[in-house]
Amino acid sequence: VTAAGVVIGNEILTAKVEDLNGPYLIKRLRERGVPLRLLIVVPDEVDAIVDAIVRARRSASHVITSGGIGPTHDDVTVRAVAMALARPVVRLPEMEAMVREHYGAKATPEAMRLADAPQGARLLRQEGVWYPVLACEGVFMLPGVPSLFRLQLEAVLGELQGEPIALRILFVSHGEPEIAGALDAVALSRPEVSIGSYPQFDRALDFKVKVTIEHKDPAVVEEVAARITALLPPGAVLRTQ
Amino acid sequence: VTAAGVVIGNEILTAKVEDLNGPYLIKRLRERGVPLRLLIVVPDEVDAIVDAIVRARRSASHVITSGGIGPTHDDVTVRAVAMALARPVVRLPEMEAMVREHYGAKATPEAMRLADAPQGARLLRQEGVWYPVLACEGVFMLPGVPSLFRLQLEAVLGELQGEPIALRILFVSHGEPEIAGALDAVALSRPEVSIGSYPQFDRALDFKVKVTIEHKDPAVVEEVAARITALLPPGAVLRTQ
Repeated sequence: VTAAGVVIGNEILTAKVEDLNGPYLIKRLRERGVPLRLLIVVPDEVDAIVDAIVRARRSASHVITSGGIGPTHDDVTVRAVAMALARPVVRLPEMEAMVREHYGAKATPEAMRLADAPQGARLLRQEGVWYPVLACEGVFMLPGVPSLFRLQLEAVLGELQGEPIALRILFVSHGEPEIAGALDAVALSRPEVSIGSYPQFDRALDFKVKVTIEHKDPAVVEEVAARITALLPPGAVLRTQ
Repeated sequence: VTAAGVVIGNEILTAKVEDLNGPYLIKRLRERGVPLRLLIVVPDEVDAIVDAIVRARRSASHVITSGGIGPTHDDVTVRAVAMALARPVVRLPEMEAMVREHYGAKATPEAMRLADAPQGARLLRQEGVWYPVLACEGVFMLPGVPSLFRLQLEAVLGELQGEPIALRILFVSHGEPEIAGALDAVALSRPEVSIGSYPQFDRALDFKVKVTIEHKDPAVVEEVAARITALLPPGAVLRTQ
């Protein structure tokens, strides 16, 4: 189980609104133990969204979109997802009934667009929101309004079972050029372990590089941490976390 | 002139570090009047980066990358950009001299990797950073450390001349289903004008939808704002900004 996120929003790319959904998605997927392989922010344009969805589906088993769900001309996500999946857009009778019930007298012809979905889409109901998540071939279409996105994301996460990842951080007193050889040697021999190296240049801090080691098996993480520590000069690892 | 951003960082996708460079890039490009067409966050993996660079180059005239610049095994941006541009990676004598000068006795063989670049790359010098921006076929490779990214981004922005975009915001008292017809009509007849519709569901606020109208010509923006206002019920536009 892996995920990719597609954030649809001119308002984000044009700096009118800060993207809250991307960072929230990153955090919740991590808590759930689902690896996020890709996050793309695209404008509200069908071609750009189709391209992003196709690419996201190649990178991950599940795709979560944010934004472009609604009755106005700039809400083109359903159409774009349908195109990316080579399915027609159809009006779902079950959704039509929901839209009529929600809007009552205000159920304009434009409001009824909310009843459209890629053919074959499933509806994921979530308490507290009248509008369900549309899901089709592993693509989950969520609204961009952050409060709604957060609520509906829980319905999606309920379907994704991840596995926790063990993490060890080494704080190292030497710079990257000096430790790169040791990291190389270990990284090459253990390609299945994710080893990250993050320099920092603030002299007020005592360490120069933060080395992260990740794998689902905590024993593997500790073994790799010990190997890296042994290859570095004595005392170079100031502390671990 | 258009831009696309590629943020390279496992640490961001795994929620260990919040992405500061993406939001900063969005803000500075907007201030500069350069439209951002795409922002992608990918892991530190050559294939994923190559794919993102290729896609970014299809969407925009200039691509700015963040991260993966450095001497360690997870710094693969230069190699990936070279692959995306179908160029070999070469060691630049001019960069070799810079690396030797900067690191002195600590110029390990791994440090010398900082002298590698896609063949034909230009160096953009920036005051306050010893390491230049590498630029090749409109791809600008910036480091991920936020303080360095910000400094070096200014060198890139110096090469990108955008044009300011006029923006008018209408605060509307009616919901999207009720105003979608009016927005449709205007948006269809003026496809060159960017019209956005952003609902909000907080009842403490007096408006239900924020409509944004953007174009480089302020007169066009005002004309479209007036047309939308005229098509909505009297008094529906509470105020403009």
